[in-house]
Amino acid sequence: MAIITLTTDFGEKDYFAGATKGAIYSELPNVKIVDISHSISPFNIPEASYIIQNAYPSFPKGTIHIIGVDSEINPENKHIAIKLDDHYFICANNGIMSMICAEIAPEKIVEINIHDKIQSSFPVLDVFVKVACHIARGGTLDVVGKTIPKIKPIKNIVPYVNDDKTQIIGSVVYIDNYGNVVTNIKRSFFESIQKGRDFEISARNYTFKKIYNKYSDFVNFDIPENQRNDEGRKLVVFNSGDFLEIAVYKSNSDTVGSASTLLGLGLMDAVSVHFIPTQIIPKGMEISQNVTKANDF
Amino acid sequence: MAIITLTTDFGEKDYFAGATKGAIYSELPNVKIVDISHSISPFNIPEASYIIQNAYPSFPKGTIHIIGVDSEINPENKHIAIKLDDHYFICANNGIMSMICAEIAPEKIVEINIHDKIQSSFPVLDVFVKVACHIARGGTLDVVGKTIPKIKPIKNIVPYVNDDKTQIIGSVVYIDNYGNVVTNIKRSFFESIQKGRDFEISARNYTFKKIYNKYSDFVNFDIPENQRNDEGRKLVVFNSGDFLEIAVYKSNSDTVGSASTLLGLGLMDAVSVHFIPTQIIPKGMEISQNVTKANDF
Amino acid sequence: MAIITLTTDFGEKDYFAGATKGAIYSELPNVKIVDISHSISPFNIPEASYIIQNAYPSFPKGTIHIIGVDSEINPENKHIAIKLDDHYFICANNGIMSMICAEIAPEKIVEINIHDKIQSSFPVLDVFVKVACHIARGGTLDVVGKTIPKIKPIKNIVPYVNDDKTQIIGSVVYIDNYGNVVTNIKRSFFESIQKGRDFEISARNYTFKKIYNKYSDFVNFDIPENQRNDEGRKLVVFNSGDFLEIAVYKSNSDTVGSASTLLGLGLMDAVSVHFIPTQIIPKGMEISQNVTKANDF
Repeated sequence: MAIITLTTDFGEKDYFAGATKGAIYSELPNVKIVDISHSISPFNIPEASYIIQNAYPSFPKGTIHIIGVDSEINPENKHIAIKLDDHYFICANNGIMSMICAEIAPEKIVEINIHDKIQSSFPVLDVFVKVACHIARGGTLDVVGKTIPKIKPIKNIVPYVNDDKTQIIGSVVYIDNYGNVVTNIKRSFFESIQKGRDFEISARNYTFKKIYNKYSDFVNFDIPENQRNDEGRKLVVFNSGDFLEIAVYKSNSDTVGSASTLLGLGLMDAVSVHFIPTQIIPKGMEISQNVTKANDF
Repeated sequence: MAIITLTTDFGEKDYFAGATKGAIYSELPNVKIVDISHSISPFNIPEASYIIQNAYPSFPKGTIHIIGVDSEINPENKHIAIKLDDHYFICANNGIMSMICAEIAPEKIVEINIHDKIQSSFPVLDVFVKVACHIARGGTLDVVGKTIPKIKPIKNIVPYVNDDKTQIIGSVVYIDNYGNVVTNIKRSFFESIQKGRDFEISARNYTFKKIYNKYSDFVNFDIPENQRNDEGRKLVVFNSGDFLEIAVYKSNSDTVGSASTLLGLGLMDAVSVHFIPTQIIPKGMEISQNVTKANDF
Repeated sequence: MAIITLTTDFGEKDYFAGATKGAIYSELPNVKIVDISHSISPFNIPEASYIIQNAYPSFPKGTIHIIGVDSEINPENKHIAIKLDDHYFICANNGIMSMICAEIAPEKIVEINIHDKIQSSFPVLDVFVKVACHIARGGTLDVVGKTIPKIKPIKNIVPYVNDDKTQIIGSVVYIDNYGNVVTNIKRSFFESIQKGRDFEISARNYTFKKIYNKYSDFVNFDIPENQRNDEGRKLVVFNSGDFLEIAVYKSNSDTVGSASTLLGLGLMDAVSVHFIPTQIIPKGMEISQNVTKANDF
């Protein structure tokens, strides 16, 4: 049974998501529909890009992903369907797929040309559902559009590295439900520049010298619980999508605060990594790379 | 496989929607359940009415729609089930169905009488689920209630037209996820009064002389992108439900603002249309009806 | 077909819930997945406990419930799976199950030990999904963990009763979508202490002497509708989960206000019940227990 996922900025209240599901079931009674998110900020392409990139790999091969963000067709915003990593993606050619395509080359990209003469203001319902159901029935991309060589790129999606590779300047691409601040710096990219050196991560006035693998690695469980003071403290992790993230331990904007509120960090703000040259250290004086120091947060 | 949809004011956090689905699956393991919305404003009948009216037509014939808004039974608020347009609707007789019934005559209306002696404060779970599952198993409405001739109407749901048909006074029935302001003026109704005349739409201090078919029709794509300034500008469209809507191009309340915030329009506020008498124009001086003029927004 | 439910603090926007569903369908294409809630406040164990306790009984026996709140594994927060009331629950051993277990004894509790060496920051995806799919395929709890005798308790979850049983002091455990204030005082517990006595319920400066069975029992339908003034008035009910709840009739925080805003009540605030000694009343002067008095709200 085919799976069709939905990632949109429709919100939780409107009839758009419901109508879209109704239209899919009207064409294909036996498909499975999965909501990934309907709460992407309106017209926010980096957010949509981040969400679909992290959600899709958990789905079975062959899953069809509809992305309904900034999808009204116009001369500068065509509709596309992409086959990549054995998944299908249907969206506008507005940069949403550029984060995924930067990592994995698409097998095929088509510009959709099944539109009627009179176009509506609800392309997800009128166009994307038709394309998704066509693919779910085993149809090929060639039937719904003409092949194009590449997608429209978006700017500033990849972090900047200076020439002597001592610095990465990334930016905030997402604030999650816990107020944690996600950057566009992936673990694999970070490590390819780091090459084992110590580092200092800077965001606003804060610096961090260690990256954790999970949030509670930050806690010293040897100290009795009532003597610890970890809730609300700042740390850096590679999150479950392997992006560098500035977090607050057990954050809650209503109580202890969150990374976004405590550090004053918002979307597109800069987060930089400075790599420290490896010094020749007298034997016996080595400091292991990731040891937390006194002035760490 | 039967489809049961849910439209409620339960919110996204509570256990109500989850428990309702559990109760449906306990009775009918093979039904499909689709959430239309659980974020209707509490007790807001016009909102619920607008959402279900626009969502239901995309679903297959035979779909059963549970509407859980202001549904506690009492002497003035009975439970009903309606067959209309080959769909089934289960709700309280509180006006929610009056927008749909004003357009399409119901095939049958019954007042539900399967209630136990002791009534709970959760009628969706205790009553609506039972009725929905009964219909899904192929049962008739006659088994769950007695036929009544008509539903309870709600006031002010249709726009007002003056006697000489030079003016429509409608009102705001819905603010969508993008902050766009939806009125109760439908395209078919508008055109039946317009009869080809020019018009001026007024909301607060703003006037509009053109209605677009989709949002980006507003943009002049002949002007280079970096010289355009369309984001955050106001326009009027017939939306995907064919209602007259005051919108902001690529609106976002957090950045460029939305129609609701920029125009200061809320639920129930008036939006009026003034029709301009067709003048006898010297040949060669005609102005086509919908041309945008300098003072348009 | 097995049912797996999800109750988390992932929020509506993130990819976490979508990825979790993708992972389940990748293992088990024919399972049914039901969202109970993804809007639990971050790390809020009493809220999660209240939601799952009230949602689970509507589901068929054999349903598997994943609870993803504060679920990162660490030396003080192990993962457990519980069989109770013929349902399965998978969560962290952080007190979430203590409200349910206080009412119904678990048939079996195991501490999950299927973790890989390298633990991720997304245990719902990496661990809970695996355990849920194992159970859905008919596997036993013994395969995924070792039996433990009891779960970790949480404090202050049950109301306090004084020695001479004249007073219950409960607390607010949940504010629902309508702003209604739910306490931890269950009807069965209340009645076991009450033993037919009159009572006075106090919260902040407000007192109530009557508990309704449903919200609109509060309304006197003998008075013509236009002479009534019920909307926005305060009352006490046993809610659909049988918890004592302070409500506002047809509450709406944006218009008439809600119990939470009008009474200034938040999570963990105290709500007390004082029982009035039964007096020897001269014959003919009896007051029936639940009659509303002039100074009632």
